Amino acid sequence: MLRSEQVTIDCLQYCNWSPAIFDQMAQGGVDAVHVTICYHEDFGETVQNLETWNRRFQDYSDRIVPGRVAEDVLTARAAGKTAIFFGFQNCSPIEDDVDRVEICHQLGVRFMQLSYNNQSLLATGCYEKEDPGITRMGRQVIREMNRVGLVIDMSHSAERSTLEAIEYSTRPIAITHANPASWHPALRNKSDEVLKALAASGGMVGFSLYPHHLKNLSDCTLPDFCAMVADTAEKMGIDHIGIGSDLCQDQPDSVVAWMRNGRWTRDTDYGEGSSSIPGFPDPPAWFRDNRDFPALGQELLTVGFSKVEVRQIMGGNWLEFFRRSFTREN
Amino acid sequence: MLRSEQVTIDCLQYCNWSPAIFDQMAQGGVDAVHVTICYHEDFGETVQNLETWNRRFQDYSDRIVPGRVAEDVLTARAAGKTAIFFGFQNCSPIEDDVDRVEICHQLGVRFMQLSYNNQSLLATGCYEKEDPGITRMGRQVIREMNRVGLVIDMSHSAERSTLEAIEYSTRPIAITHANPASWHPALRNKSDEVLKALAASGGMVGFSLYPHHLKNLSDCTLPDFCAMVADTAEKMGIDHIGIGSDLCQDQPDSVVAWMRNGRWTRDTDYGEGSSSIPGFPDPPAWFRDNRDFPALGQELLTVGFSKVEVRQIMGGNWLEFFRRSFTREN
Repeated sequence: MLRSEQVTIDCLQYCNWSPAIFDQMAQGGVDAVHVTICYHEDFGETVQNLETWNRRFQDYSDRIVPGRVAEDVLTARAAGKTAIFFGFQNCSPIEDDVDRVEICHQLGVRFMQLSYNNQSLLATGCYEKEDPGITRMGRQVIREMNRVGLVIDMSHSAERSTLEAIEYSTRPIAITHANPASWHPALRNKSDEVLKALAASGGMVGFSLYPHHLKNLSDCTLPDFCAMVADTAEKMGIDHIGIGSDLCQDQPDSVVAWMRNGRWTRDTDYGEGSSSIPGFPDPPAWFRDNRDFPALGQELLTVGFSKVEVRQIMGGNWLEFFRRSFTREN
Repeated sequence: MLRSEQVTIDCLQYCNWSPAIFDQMAQGGVDAVHVTICYHEDFGETVQNLETWNRRFQDYSDRIVPGRVAEDVLTARAAGKTAIFFGFQNCSPIEDDVDRVEICHQLGVRFMQLSYNNQSLLATGCYEKEDPGITRMGRQVIREMNRVGLVIDMSHSAERSTLEAIEYSTRPIAITHANPASWHPALRNKSDEVLKALAASGGMVGFSLYPHHLKNLSDCTLPDFCAMVADTAEKMGIDHIGIGSDLCQDQPDSVVAWMRNGRWTRDTDYGEGSSSIPGFPDPPAWFRDNRDFPALGQELLTVGFSKVEVRQIMGGNWLEFFRRSFTREN
């Protein structure tokens, strides 16, 4: 029964939020979105970002509601609204304080990456040359995240750190937005070893629609993308896959510069881009905003998934994962 | 001429500062001390610690003066006072901001460790199981420290990170407080490979008198200690050794708990101690406070160093290093 619930969940967006985008979520039938609250912000800056969201929930209460537990997705859907779940793309908000994990959960945060592109206090990012795995503090933080129900997200982390996070975490973890490296060999995409370990532990991957993660980048076709989904379903099992689009709609290029450079470098880091293509890449023609989700679900049927399987991929699996993940253990 | 300058410099203390201790510095003829300003403090907390020192410079102006350039040591000595040079035992005050390096130098800081016992954003600490070397941000920060004249200190860092810091830094670095691991195999002590690379690059080691770094711990004898100094002089050359006592006089055990645990763990980390010996160890009977420096110099003569060599070890080498290190490159 649960698996046939018809919900659409996108497990990663970082748009330049506006009423127009909230309207598009409704038009696309998107019931829940995991939104990014920080990239490099410290705790104080992150709280300011949360305050901005609290105002949005007041100002656009006809469109969006705070998402804290899985059932908020169904409540939002019934009301024709979208539930917004908060996540960090880095561990910078907890600074060096393990007790800040619980504070962040109390403030509504449900996902935290243990590292962004660089080495963090907890784990290694995918752009470092060396990956020593989970640090001493990292082990403490994983245990605390497990306790309070804050999901470990390793989307931007390096291989060994990711495998160790899967191993050390007593609860399933997520890679909210990435694709298989075997399909498109970007540093941000994941090895088959990681994807299989993730599935074996009950974890989830969200397929990314960010062009740098796609075969042929912005020219990737919808059938190619859906064929990759089918291929990954074979590897991981149908229960462990979903969508995490990494949609960065309406953002100026200064935002991607902040993501890549933060305050940590005096050189310019181009990340997945280059000095000739320093900004956000163009999205694929078939995925420009939240209104494009229904066509994606339709194409998944075309490549051979059943209706039940498409429901799982488009949101049912994330809903199940939310049910298992956001509760406190003690 | 320079080498025969008679100065006494201790390149690491973290005492519970009081007028009594400042008096003892004068009685021991200590002309300059590198004092620790932070272990885990963030930038704001570190600024508060600097404010406390600024008040001390006013309140005890008859005893202590701020140390910013090497010549401040000689000025202090001529006035019968002690020059206080600031250092960080961790990179926590610069947070994730490479531009904070220059700010800290402007505030008077002259030494910064790239990591304490744990992995940092820049390098690895000696208690981590894995050491991936200098991180992406670490390379940026080393370059910036070189530019502004903030000395890289690797006292608590792990082997590979230390070797890479020596390699990547264009200016000589310091290990302000540690002993050879070949003499006493503590995690905090340094391999012959590190000590030789340090010397070859023009760097300095300061010998520690902290019991956990000494053979036979608190029972270490003064002749044993001085024999180790002589042995290390053979390995590194007489120009690259000095004193960094790690004196933690009058500190309550809560302070060593802060050093080890900061805010990063919910378990108790005992560092070099254990659950049965959780606090500060007793100092050796022959090194209890700043008044014990003259006897240490005397014993170095006894083990066979010349008068000039003893002057180098007791402060002359650090003075030379200060001259080369604290100036801006541009």
